Amino acid sequence: MEQKVMDPVLQKALEQFTALDEKITHFSSIIGLTDWDQKVMAPKKGRAIFAKATGTLRTEVFKLMISSEMGVLLETLSKPESAKELDVNTKAKVREYKAYYQKSKSIPADLFQEYSILTAQANDAWEEARANNDFARFLPYLEKIVDYKRKFAEIFGYEEHPYDALLDEFEPGLTVKRLDPLFAKLRESSVRLLERIRGNGKRTKAEIFQQSFEIEKQKAFNRYILPIIGFDLDAGRLDETVHPFAQTVNTGDVRLTTRYLEKNVRSALFGTIHEAGHGIYEQHVTPEFEESILQSGASFGIHESQSRFLENMVGRSKEFWKFFFPKLQEYFPAQLKNVSVDDFYRAVNTVEPSFIRVEADELTYNLHIMLRYEIEKALIAGEIEAKDLPVIWNQKMQDYLGVTPSTDTLGVLQDVHWSFGGIGYFPSYSLGNLYAAQILRTIQKELPDFYSHIENGRFDVIQEWLKENIHQYGKLYTPNELIVKVTGEELNADYLVEYLEKKYAEVYGI
Amino acid sequence: MEQKVMDPVLQKALEQFTALDEKITHFSSIIGLTDWDQKVMAPKKGRAIFAKATGTLRTEVFKLMISSEMGVLLETLSKPESAKELDVNTKAKVREYKAYYQKSKSIPADLFQEYSILTAQANDAWEEARANNDFARFLPYLEKIVDYKRKFAEIFGYEEHPYDALLDEFEPGLTVKRLDPLFAKLRESSVRLLERIRGNGKRTKAEIFQQSFEIEKQKAFNRYILPIIGFDLDAGRLDETVHPFAQTVNTGDVRLTTRYLEKNVRSALFGTIHEAGHGIYEQHVTPEFEESILQSGASFGIHESQSRFLENMVGRSKEFWKFFFPKLQEYFPAQLKNVSVDDFYRAVNTVEPSFIRVEADELTYNLHIMLRYEIEKALIAGEIEAKDLPVIWNQKMQDYLGVTPSTDTLGVLQDVHWSFGGIGYFPSYSLGNLYAAQILRTIQKELPDFYSHIENGRFDVIQEWLKENIHQYGKLYTPNELIVKVTGEELNADYLVEYLEKKYAEVYGI
Repeated sequence: MEQKVMDPVLQKALEQFTALDEKITHFSSIIGLTDWDQKVMAPKKGRAIFAKATGTLRTEVFKLMISSEMGVLLETLSKPESAKELDVNTKAKVREYKAYYQKSKSIPADLFQEYSILTAQANDAWEEARANNDFARFLPYLEKIVDYKRKFAEIFGYEEHPYDALLDEFEPGLTVKRLDPLFAKLRESSVRLLERIRGNGKRTKAEIFQQSFEIEKQKAFNRYILPIIGFDLDAGRLDETVHPFAQTVNTGDVRLTTRYLEKNVRSALFGTIHEAGHGIYEQHVTPEFEESILQSGASFGIHESQSRFLENMVGRSKEFWKFFFPKLQEYFPAQLKNVSVDDFYRAVNTVEPSFIRVEADELTYNLHIMLRYEIEKALIAGEIEAKDLPVIWNQKMQDYLGVTPSTDTLGVLQDVHWSFGGIGYFPSYSLGNLYAAQILRTIQKELPDFYSHIENGRFDVIQEWLKENIHQYGKLYTPNELIVKVTGEELNADYLVEYLEKKYAEVYGI
Repeated sequence: MEQKVMDPVLQKALEQFTALDEKITHFSSIIGLTDWDQKVMAPKKGRAIFAKATGTLRTEVFKLMISSEMGVLLETLSKPESAKELDVNTKAKVREYKAYYQKSKSIPADLFQEYSILTAQANDAWEEARANNDFARFLPYLEKIVDYKRKFAEIFGYEEHPYDALLDEFEPGLTVKRLDPLFAKLRESSVRLLERIRGNGKRTKAEIFQQSFEIEKQKAFNRYILPIIGFDLDAGRLDETVHPFAQTVNTGDVRLTTRYLEKNVRSALFGTIHEAGHGIYEQHVTPEFEESILQSGASFGIHESQSRFLENMVGRSKEFWKFFFPKLQEYFPAQLKNVSVDDFYRAVNTVEPSFIRVEADELTYNLHIMLRYEIEKALIAGEIEAKDLPVIWNQKMQDYLGVTPSTDTLGVLQDVHWSFGGIGYFPSYSLGNLYAAQILRTIQKELPDFYSHIENGRFDVIQEWLKENIHQYGKLYTPNELIVKVTGEELNADYLVEYLEKKYAEVYGI
């Protein structure tokens, strides 16, 4: 085979770009490790000063990403005549850096500075507001954040809806036009399904969980299941924090946290499985992408699909508990010896409308997201005003979930996202569920024994499929490219709707 | 009071220098945290790639420290007319950066590159050599390292002895001329004292320690004593590693490690107290020096003085055990209920010549250092050759300690220092002991109830004195300036000699 000789200018640019990518990724990897450390390990008296140290390194990364060197390299590597000489990996890297570069460069420095100060203050205001059930405390900040986000949307540009410009930050390429029908179908079906469950009068034995489960035993059980479901503990850790998360340092170092509650054995269990879904994804990215921007997952939504797939499609399946329940009974004989695996399976799938998103079950969770999506979209379109949110929030809660929060702390103030300007983030969670159900459909076609593998504890077969078809590619593909490549079609809400119908028919006999 | 107006050029240079110092310190703080993490927390599969990431950040720090910006700033701030306008803190910072800048700049880049590659390879060769008792495996690397170090000594420059140039890296300003008489006196006295102890025939009840001490209880006891002796656990941590160390992130985040051996309760105990001495020093540096190069200790030797002072002068005193032994008995009743505090005190001060420096007692430890000092000095002077070291080593072991190691693994190959080029480092350990004894003399004058405070557990009084007189100053003073400021005189070996004579008279009744 003939070796093509690359244009020397392009060759030089490619080398410089690769070195810059490596440097940025090295620094980001260090920031990832220090973020984990400050949440999990650092003594309290050092954190404020250390935040300044990481601030300096974050600024360094930001400067490199929007440097004139980066600008020139991206221009050279994006020329039409360069395209045919560059491999797909390089093109994906250019795509990622270019998106960030263009967005960052398009915002005037003083506007960005004002916005950064605003969000720092807004976070404090939100914390106070939530603690004191005082929406008015947060409102002026929220109003300003919405104003800035609307300005940014205009600066970034969009084709049809200003919210598209914000969605794009979390799920590149996604638009209101594509999302509206997906979410409408999911919302309508979920509301109907919830009504049927509530009307049917049957209950699960959720009181199984209203017992004490010794925390040391919970820890041992969580550590026991992790390697079995596919998380490599030689390439990661499991620790404890109040808010569980997964943090990647590199593909050989992925750190999970979970939270143990004595009165709620489900919390740590499904928290751990969820974070393991994120972590296994990152452990499986090809070593070829190590030390480059491609070493992470494709998008927020795709990442969430992997955590939800493992937590819900796998971890809340009957087969999962057929395999693991006898072991759980060994750990907790007093609590579980008289419980059947079927009752346990139904109990972990209990549906119960509640005020708080992060405590919601698999069905009602999406309704919490729909509500937030509709509010964000209307705020950015200028159709509603921030001051009216408590009323709008409670009305939608009543419409979709049939419950009304008694305070704003339990309602519109519950989530941190708006306080840091993360408008456009919430849809990722339900996107994750939609992607996960569509992937489930495909994996069941390609591995007809999918549920038998789970029942037999052969998670390796399932993880190998996920690695081969999704995980290994890291950030190589856009989320839309990836879901089409994996499932043969664009995102479709039918699969999640059918999955939920089927599951709750089984759990509640409806 | 009239406010002096600074020359605007100098003012500008001062601002830039302060910003550069802060950036370097921020990055160094991050490197410190990641070094700790990789030794204590990181899963094994991620470490190799992460080493490349920290390598990138280390290179960044090195580039900043020898940047042309730094060069210009140091020149401006070092001008005679600048001196009277700058405060003492700034002058100390300039002194520190200048020393590093001049040394680093004086070595040609290609020479430094060759040397860096050599030491990386030498470390692997040393590990193999030690594992296989194969000095010949390490010899060619050691010969080259000595050659490079002799070249560096010529490049750095010295007044009388080439070894001075290397000593200066660890103990700024120290020379062979000053060190020789100090070490000669200490060596002669220690050899004589050791002979008297061995001749006297009395023994301590060291077999107290030849029992099993449950590791979980050891952990609890170590954690119990730390805050009492002055280490703030809200501004630090205690973890486990094979080789104990102390790592500072900032003054509010100082991390210690220790090693627990079931069959050796002394190992963790005195390891923890030793590292706490280092750690408390760093916790006590004035917040004014936070985020600057002055936030660390004055020198290797002064640092070691603080760890040795706490470990030996305090931690191996009879009064220390009068206070803590009853508590230790509560933790280990089966092992200690029939042991008297006096026997315990004498047992922790057992003298026993051994081959391995890091396991040596307070008396023979210095003889291990004397031997290394004499060898290093002669190597750098070209008076002996590396190939003859096994013979020279064993001869000196016999002369000073009366024992001859049976293998080079237990002899000349035991320490890592030469493999990374750390020639000039060993003297710091005995300097620490010398400084510590001289400080002990002063503190006993200023706090006549010094030992009563220990016996009453009033470590806060002692720590306050150390903070006030030594710790708070960080790197503000050179080691010599500091010891004169604290004790009123230059370093003098008499105090350590007298201290050791007195202690072993008591312990062994000689």
